[in-house]
Amino acid sequence: MTGTAKRDDPVSLALDLVGDRWTLAVLRDLLKGITRFSELKRSVNGIAANILSDRLQRLERYGIVGRHVYSEHPLRAEYRLTPKGHELGVVAGALAAWGARHLSDEPYLVHAECGDAAVVRYFCDTCDRTIRGAEVRLSR
Amino acid sequence: MTGTAKRDDPVSLALDLVGDRWTLAVLRDLLKGITRFSELKRSVNGIAANILSDRLQRLERYGIVGRHVYSEHPLRAEYRLTPKGHELGVVAGALAAWGARHLSDEPYLVHAECGDAAVVRYFCDTCDRTIRGAEVRLSR
Repeated sequence: MTGTAKRDDPVSLALDLVGDRWTLAVLRDLLKGITRFSELKRSVNGIAANILSDRLQRLERYGIVGRHVYSEHPLRAEYRLTPKGHELGVVAGALAAWGARHLSDEPYLVHAECGDAAVVRYFCDTCDRTIRGAEVRLSR
Repeated sequence: MTGTAKRDDPVSLALDLVGDRWTLAVLRDLLKGITRFSELKRSVNGIAANILSDRLQRLERYGIVGRHVYSEHPLRAEYRLTPKGHELGVVAGALAAWGARHLSDEPYLVHAECGDAAVVRYFCDTCDRTIRGAEVRLSR
C-alpha cells in the first residue's frame, strides 16, 4: 500500500534514522557539546561501547555527525554535529522539553542568558515572526 | 544503572509514548485537523483499525488527545489534540521538516500566509526572540 505511514514519509524516514532511544540520547549529549567517545560513553549512562560506536558510525554515515581526529598517537577523535545534525537537535530539544514538562520532574530547557524557559516554536524567516501550528501546512 | 538513557529521562519517556511510527503518523494527521476515526483510518494509509483504535486510546489516556462524541445514534466521536498534544505537534512538525529537507523529496512545512518555509526554532518568551541551540541549556 502507498501512503503517509510508508517508509518514504519524512516522519517515518527520520524515525528510521534517529527514532531509537540510544541515538536520541547520543544526539542530546552531542547537542550539549560533549564530543569525545569516552565522555559520551559516560554521559549516556548504560550505553555499551559497541552500541555507541555503531550509533556514531551510523550518524556519521548519514552526515549528521562529523568525526575529527585530534590525535594520531594514540588515535583520538571528536564527534560534532554537522549543520544537518544541528537542525535535528531542535527535534531532540523539543521532545526533551515536552517530556520534561509533561512526563517527569526533569528540568526544562532554559535560555542560558536569562534563565527562563526556552520553548520550541514554528518561525517564518520571511515574515520574521513566530507562527502558530494552525498557520503551518505542507507545501503541496 | 542510573543515567540519561534510562526510562525516567524526558526524551526516553516521550519516546515510550509517541516514538512509534503509527503514533507519530496519527499525531501528524490530527495536527492537520483530521478528527474522525474513518478519516484518520484513510489518511494514515495502511493502518489497521485496531491499531488506530489502540493508539487513539493510548493518546487519550495520556491526555494528548481528547475524544468528543458528536452523535449518539449512531455513536460517532471526534478526536482532537489537547493543549498538551498541540505542544507535541511541534515535535512531529520539526521531525517532518527535517526529514523532508534531508531525506526525501516530500514537501517542506510552509507558512500558509506567505507560502515560504516554516522552520522550527528555540524561542525565549522573556527575551521575545529566537535563540540558538548553543544558548539553550538544561535548567539544573
